[in-house]
Amino acid sequence: MALMTGEEYIESIRKIDMQVYMFGEKIDNPVDHPILRPSLNSVRMTYDLAQLPEYQDVMTAISPETGERINRFTHLHQSTGDLIKKVKMQRLLGQQTASCFQRCVGMDAFNAIYSTAFEIDQAHGGHYFDNFKKFLFDAQLRDLTVDGAMTDPKGDRSKSPHDQEDPDLYLHVVERRPDGIVVRGAKAHQTGVINSHEIIVMPTSAMTPEDRDYAVAFAVPMDTPGILMIVGRQSCDTRKLEDGDLDVGNSEFGGVEALVVFDDVFVPNDRIFLNGETEFAGLLVERFAGYHRQSYGGCKTGVGDVLIGAAALAADYNGVPKASHLKDKLVEMNHLNETLYCCGIACSAEGQATPAGNFIVDLLLANVCKQNVTRFPYEISRLATDIAGGLMVTAPSEQDLRDPVLGPIVAKYFKAAPDVSTEDRLRIMRLIENLCLGTSAVGYLVESVHGAGSPQAQRVMIARQGGVPAKKEMAKKLAHIGA
Amino acid sequence: MALMTGEEYIESIRKIDMQVYMFGEKIDNPVDHPILRPSLNSVRMTYDLAQLPEYQDVMTAISPETGERINRFTHLHQSTGDLIKKVKMQRLLGQQTASCFQRCVGMDAFNAIYSTAFEIDQAHGGHYFDNFKKFLFDAQLRDLTVDGAMTDPKGDRSKSPHDQEDPDLYLHVVERRPDGIVVRGAKAHQTGVINSHEIIVMPTSAMTPEDRDYAVAFAVPMDTPGILMIVGRQSCDTRKLEDGDLDVGNSEFGGVEALVVFDDVFVPNDRIFLNGETEFAGLLVERFAGYHRQSYGGCKTGVGDVLIGAAALAADYNGVPKASHLKDKLVEMNHLNETLYCCGIACSAEGQATPAGNFIVDLLLANVCKQNVTRFPYEISRLATDIAGGLMVTAPSEQDLRDPVLGPIVAKYFKAAPDVSTEDRLRIMRLIENLCLGTSAVGYLVESVHGAGSPQAQRVMIARQGGVPAKKEMAKKLAHIGA
Amino acid sequence: MALMTGEEYIESIRKIDMQVYMFGEKIDNPVDHPILRPSLNSVRMTYDLAQLPEYQDVMTAISPETGERINRFTHLHQSTGDLIKKVKMQRLLGQQTASCFQRCVGMDAFNAIYSTAFEIDQAHGGHYFDNFKKFLFDAQLRDLTVDGAMTDPKGDRSKSPHDQEDPDLYLHVVERRPDGIVVRGAKAHQTGVINSHEIIVMPTSAMTPEDRDYAVAFAVPMDTPGILMIVGRQSCDTRKLEDGDLDVGNSEFGGVEALVVFDDVFVPNDRIFLNGETEFAGLLVERFAGYHRQSYGGCKTGVGDVLIGAAALAADYNGVPKASHLKDKLVEMNHLNETLYCCGIACSAEGQATPAGNFIVDLLLANVCKQNVTRFPYEISRLATDIAGGLMVTAPSEQDLRDPVLGPIVAKYFKAAPDVSTEDRLRIMRLIENLCLGTSAVGYLVESVHGAGSPQAQRVMIARQGGVPAKKEMAKKLAHIGA
Amino acid sequence: MALMTGEEYIESIRKIDMQVYMFGEKIDNPVDHPILRPSLNSVRMTYDLAQLPEYQDVMTAISPETGERINRFTHLHQSTGDLIKKVKMQRLLGQQTASCFQRCVGMDAFNAIYSTAFEIDQAHGGHYFDNFKKFLFDAQLRDLTVDGAMTDPKGDRSKSPHDQEDPDLYLHVVERRPDGIVVRGAKAHQTGVINSHEIIVMPTSAMTPEDRDYAVAFAVPMDTPGILMIVGRQSCDTRKLEDGDLDVGNSEFGGVEALVVFDDVFVPNDRIFLNGETEFAGLLVERFAGYHRQSYGGCKTGVGDVLIGAAALAADYNGVPKASHLKDKLVEMNHLNETLYCCGIACSAEGQATPAGNFIVDLLLANVCKQNVTRFPYEISRLATDIAGGLMVTAPSEQDLRDPVLGPIVAKYFKAAPDVSTEDRLRIMRLIENLCLGTSAVGYLVESVHGAGSPQAQRVMIARQGGVPAKKEMAKKLAHIGA
Repeated sequence: MALMTGEEYIESIRKIDMQVYMFGEKIDNPVDHPILRPSLNSVRMTYDLAQLPEYQDVMTAISPETGERINRFTHLHQSTGDLIKKVKMQRLLGQQTASCFQRCVGMDAFNAIYSTAFEIDQAHGGHYFDNFKKFLFDAQLRDLTVDGAMTDPKGDRSKSPHDQEDPDLYLHVVERRPDGIVVRGAKAHQTGVINSHEIIVMPTSAMTPEDRDYAVAFAVPMDTPGILMIVGRQSCDTRKLEDGDLDVGNSEFGGVEALVVFDDVFVPNDRIFLNGETEFAGLLVERFAGYHRQSYGGCKTGVGDVLIGAAALAADYNGVPKASHLKDKLVEMNHLNETLYCCGIACSAEGQATPAGNFIVDLLLANVCKQNVTRFPYEISRLATDIAGGLMVTAPSEQDLRDPVLGPIVAKYFKAAPDVSTEDRLRIMRLIENLCLGTSAVGYLVESVHGAGSPQAQRVMIARQGGVPAKKEMAKKLAHIGA
Repeated sequence: MALMTGEEYIESIRKIDMQVYMFGEKIDNPVDHPILRPSLNSVRMTYDLAQLPEYQDVMTAISPETGERINRFTHLHQSTGDLIKKVKMQRLLGQQTASCFQRCVGMDAFNAIYSTAFEIDQAHGGHYFDNFKKFLFDAQLRDLTVDGAMTDPKGDRSKSPHDQEDPDLYLHVVERRPDGIVVRGAKAHQTGVINSHEIIVMPTSAMTPEDRDYAVAFAVPMDTPGILMIVGRQSCDTRKLEDGDLDVGNSEFGGVEALVVFDDVFVPNDRIFLNGETEFAGLLVERFAGYHRQSYGGCKTGVGDVLIGAAALAADYNGVPKASHLKDKLVEMNHLNETLYCCGIACSAEGQATPAGNFIVDLLLANVCKQNVTRFPYEISRLATDIAGGLMVTAPSEQDLRDPVLGPIVAKYFKAAPDVSTEDRLRIMRLIENLCLGTSAVGYLVESVHGAGSPQAQRVMIARQGGVPAKKEMAKKLAHIGA
Repeated sequence: MALMTGEEYIESIRKIDMQVYMFGEKIDNPVDHPILRPSLNSVRMTYDLAQLPEYQDVMTAISPETGERINRFTHLHQSTGDLIKKVKMQRLLGQQTASCFQRCVGMDAFNAIYSTAFEIDQAHGGHYFDNFKKFLFDAQLRDLTVDGAMTDPKGDRSKSPHDQEDPDLYLHVVERRPDGIVVRGAKAHQTGVINSHEIIVMPTSAMTPEDRDYAVAFAVPMDTPGILMIVGRQSCDTRKLEDGDLDVGNSEFGGVEALVVFDDVFVPNDRIFLNGETEFAGLLVERFAGYHRQSYGGCKTGVGDVLIGAAALAADYNGVPKASHLKDKLVEMNHLNETLYCCGIACSAEGQATPAGNFIVDLLLANVCKQNVTRFPYEISRLATDIAGGLMVTAPSEQDLRDPVLGPIVAKYFKAAPDVSTEDRLRIMRLIENLCLGTSAVGYLVESVHGAGSPQAQRVMIARQGGVPAKKEMAKKLAHIGA
Repeated sequence: MALMTGEEYIESIRKIDMQVYMFGEKIDNPVDHPILRPSLNSVRMTYDLAQLPEYQDVMTAISPETGERINRFTHLHQSTGDLIKKVKMQRLLGQQTASCFQRCVGMDAFNAIYSTAFEIDQAHGGHYFDNFKKFLFDAQLRDLTVDGAMTDPKGDRSKSPHDQEDPDLYLHVVERRPDGIVVRGAKAHQTGVINSHEIIVMPTSAMTPEDRDYAVAFAVPMDTPGILMIVGRQSCDTRKLEDGDLDVGNSEFGGVEALVVFDDVFVPNDRIFLNGETEFAGLLVERFAGYHRQSYGGCKTGVGDVLIGAAALAADYNGVPKASHLKDKLVEMNHLNETLYCCGIACSAEGQATPAGNFIVDLLLANVCKQNVTRFPYEISRLATDIAGGLMVTAPSEQDLRDPVLGPIVAKYFKAAPDVSTEDRLRIMRLIENLCLGTSAVGYLVESVHGAGSPQAQRVMIARQGGVPAKKEMAKKLAHIGA
């Protein structure tokens, strides 16, 4: 059976000896750290839901190679239907966790490398495709969570990888041995890496022949010697260290980002999927980015659903559920959120088979999808703030509410709708704060801008894929211009 | 063979004895009138393209009933794939005509009535479904263009149909005979009616039992006694009466709207699809509106493609093709336009089979689609105007350009890019003017707002379909509120 | 007495022997041409209102030089109060004409040249300032309308004026005589030129020493030999030739643009205000543009007021004055319109005295003002369209309404609110059509984008004036980023 | 001398025995608490700058009554020039603190009560005006910071004050004594209250005669028995408790909100400014709101300046200062920010004298100002995020940077522009985080929505003040719609 339970997932991560640092200190085990645990809980949800019959169709798939039922996060998309189900799965998980559930990067890396490795081997006669299939089928069978790591620190952005003063600012091969390679460098902003069993590394941009040592893709387990992680700070991160479950807003789920350093890490030959074929680096990036830009049309929509629900509850709890301007703002939030979903679905429905056989999204529409994701969550967040009211940022602490003297004062003066307790009203305020300003805003707002490539990266792709020359011809014909 | 050629279509319309009025006068035949002919040319394109092998897949379908290849405009959608192809067909036609091609209302009426008539008969044991199938299969076989007429004049909007002071302000049955019914009233803003062989009439809103006489749907040929049309004026309509092909911008294609009056028109029994079952009026409206809101994600995107192409040419012809801010504006135009397309595709991909067997779009997403169509074309138009420059509204007339004295002055002073003639530059300016202010702006801008229901109609549907109660539950669970 | 009546103005224009061409033919006199007369009526309003006591304060000023009461359109702004009154005057005129009243370019040229000529003379010891004062005080005394002409055709935009293949694509000096200069070239998109007594010519951009012959500013009467005008076409222009006053929407007022050709026009020495001092060309352009970008915060706001009023009437006449979504759209229209007004007022209130003594607007805020004008009218227009309904583009012609047979049908079926005649409903629809698609949309939409400089021109100024270096220092100080 | 130094201000607050609670505990003195001190520092800046000659004109004024130079925050606006200077002062302080400096509510309360008390006395012959002048002149002389408290908890929003189940949910008079009144209730979301010497209480909405006990305005010192404050939590509040100055983003300045409870507080007669004259409650609210909505056009613009500067530095430090899309985003940020400023200036320049003699802003434009403030900071924040990059939410902690082992790794891998230290790069990231997600986002984003009234409150005022009836008349006249 290829499906782990959520509990098995947690325990499997506990067993991995990772080098994780935070606030200047080594973390014994991320599984037990209150700042990191919510992030594991989010990944866990990808396992828990896969166990439930009602979600089987969306959360799992039958592996065409092994015939086994596997978690969809390890699946190679076999059709546009699979691409659509991927988006639905992501929306579902966004709804359940209101956060980044961090397992998509691996799924998107799987699908991008699969087709690219196939094409490299077609061109060069190598065995990257076999390497990758071996790795992937193992990951399917063991139901692994795999981080897909692309973003290098990049250093001086006016220079290409091989031109950097510090050669390590893009991850690169520092030694080639008969049995493998040694790599050095780092990947920044890695969501989900501390929750993963393995990590797949990919190059971060198109490359020229001089960048040969930088055109490298591979996978290694997270406890491979030389890998070290430094966890990034999030807004309101330390609220997770406080007692109580109220002020944190969303006490169970979250996401975490880290810098992952590869300090002379050895990669055995059978775990290498790209090694010097610079002309394929751009294609791999483009495909991974395409899949990942599709992903945002699912996951962010799911988080948006929670924010819409929270805003609607806030209107109820504030005692103004019927105000026409608030109802209209909820319509607008839904409208914008569903527009994002439309983009996620559309780039899936317009997907195509790659030469390797798995399906790739329509790249133009996937970039359009992500471009909208860089915009609409801010307006949705603004509207949620409008509906919630100022209390979302001025409410007293949970300690005040629990205090025998202050508690009754808080309860008295923040009572609004007759049948709603002040505590429940504060709970929904804190959830909205969490999504608009707190830890989840990191994922819902900033990651919506920069994850899967910054806005300008999408515009470059839209410029390339937009078909303007053909559109000029349409206009010329209608305007009676030209031969 | 069920497919007419374009020429056959034109001649078939010429043979119909319609009562068409414009500027206070009866039009002998719309086919030969310079203001109306471009509108027929647009419809004709739906026939011409269906003849071409390269468009066969998108423009035609195999009728599941007769096994014959039919024009997709007469097809009952058999799958989400069919719904998607519908959108692609519409985008193609928008690209070819840069105008409303006016045959969608019939297609959308076919599909909406088919499933609704089936359900009425299931409930009431009647024969509307058989009536409709007979009518539809004939339309498929003869490749007819059929107007789908929904919008009543509505009179005093604070009152329901049966409450109006003038009972005719909603179309209604004035007499019931053994062999049929007699109807009176009108349908307003009817795009494409003067180019149609037949007209399908549907009710315009949900109804109560007292509105019984107003809950009526049927089809009649356009030359049925009692039908009279008054053509509406469009911006720049009379430029089509001028000599030359330049100032009109798009000399071949256009759209036209008319008021269609039913002055005691007899409808035989076998042409009736709804007659008094008021509880089904709302369902029929909702379905037709759903299909038609999907349509706008195709056709307007196609027109947008032409406007993008025209703006890109304007940048070329103005001599500034490399300006980064102009290239960025083209990206934005493409981005917005493809977002509309995404919505059209998504509501199709998420479609479902009706009990009758044909497929209906996802209603929430179709309404989201149309809501975006009420917005983005204005921004696309503004950006096109920005790129084009003021010349699009200050250029001299074609007569000036052709004048032996003035022509050289015009040619000299409006010369810009070295290799582009002033005439070509003016041609592209006029095409942009046509789309942003002229006859085509009626379709591209105002119809984008009001066609298939005004913006608020979509918001009402989004409010109903947005699933807010379920989203509240998601938020409560995460905020630890409740039982 | 320095104030002409409106009637005197019209007759004074009638006496000028202008060379005006339209549709390939010479126009006998613009005063009597139905397409051109509305444009004169708009200018006339600047005279008519100046006669009325209730508008004396806003429409007139006391000339500080002559002590006479003059029309504010010929006034040199003496204070920020004057700058503010200018904006109020423009808003008033926009409200009265719903169109461009075309006399601002002269006022803005007066004020820009006055201070620039002063500074040139300070630098070079010439007599441009005296020339200009003589010209201006005569214009004040005779209450003249003067066109301010800046925009050259520009030809190949990648080349500077002196580098053009055709040297005439920027207006330039072709001969220098003892008594004056001879100029050749053209000014494009000239609003109001056919309604003016005189024309002031200015250079169109910053220039380098090689452009010496192109750095020229002067004024000549409109009947100066060698001046020829070709009128540009506007959307719906020929509706003004039709009988009736309904379909045209706004039958009395309008604006007109023309290409003005200078075919070896002689300019006497005392009418020259710049002649070869290339280093001042940019300053003159910047100041004129600054004043003119301020202007748009007044005039377009006034036109917006009419469109808001028309949309509110449409809601009334459609019978839905209470719908909350429509009321909210009116609020939004007002909000956007008043934001434009705020920008016009603010750049005035923040104005400063020039070395010559008259006042100049705050250039940053004036550019911000115009930048908003390139955006908000499109949204206001979209909202007006939303409120109006599709009837604004599908209504039958006035001939249909007047026809004894068709008229009653039109009246019956387009009747809506109980106490409003169908004719009045159609009148308001046509006014909205006129502003959103017709002749006035040229001014309200396209001119809002391109008049006084295209959007990017404002962005260049905002980049230069935005004070980013100082803002970086603020951020460094707060972030403790050291010396 | 009426001006305190900043240090004197701090010490004067230290001497006040306030009842302040936070996290369930009583705070000994806000002056020394690391979460609260930055808030005092912000207020202190209003004193420090008033000492500097270069800011004398903007920061101070001559009291027309006493002839002494006073801090402008205690000044009654004597002209539109004063109103404009108020906005400039606020922008300056926003630039210096990048936060809410909390002294505006008092200034706005002074000006609103002054004119309202005058009018009440005119109507009723009382002595509120004298009471208020005595209070105010003392505040001017002693250079006090006074909180202006308006917002009641409001309870069940469907009910008026006197109808609430719990009568205390609006602050009200519970006892009338010969020497004064006793009040009970609370004011929520009080920015700056813990930094104030005194507090002015005002009613929160228009009232009916039954609300008589709720129509009360007065001033008392902050150490008046019965006043208790509970500090609200802000995003990232506890970062201020951490060591180091980096992660907090803005270590010196901030703002704080609190619930202020009045538990049977006695107010002597000469401190009462309204007591039962319910018909004036709405006027007072409207005026205070008007002034305060103007304020936001100053202070938020100043904070926006810092965010623009920080984003520009981020582009520099990221090593991409020349990217055209980033430069364009900075232009857009400036454009939006200056549009807010325009609105602040315009409602000031259009101000009018009240019957009492001080000046009130133009209420329509002040509401337009605030309405824009509810929107543009979100887009400015989104653009800042876009420019900054994901590092603003994924950067390691200061402890990591300072750690001997981890520090060099952080320094190495987050090095970007050659001449910029990683620490400086992180500093600017944290400042941007602070403004977009952290403590300052409470002021810059959420307070921009809800402070001085929620968005809908402004829309109600725009609807009332927008002059739509007059605009309808303009449209009717132009459309020839008759008497």
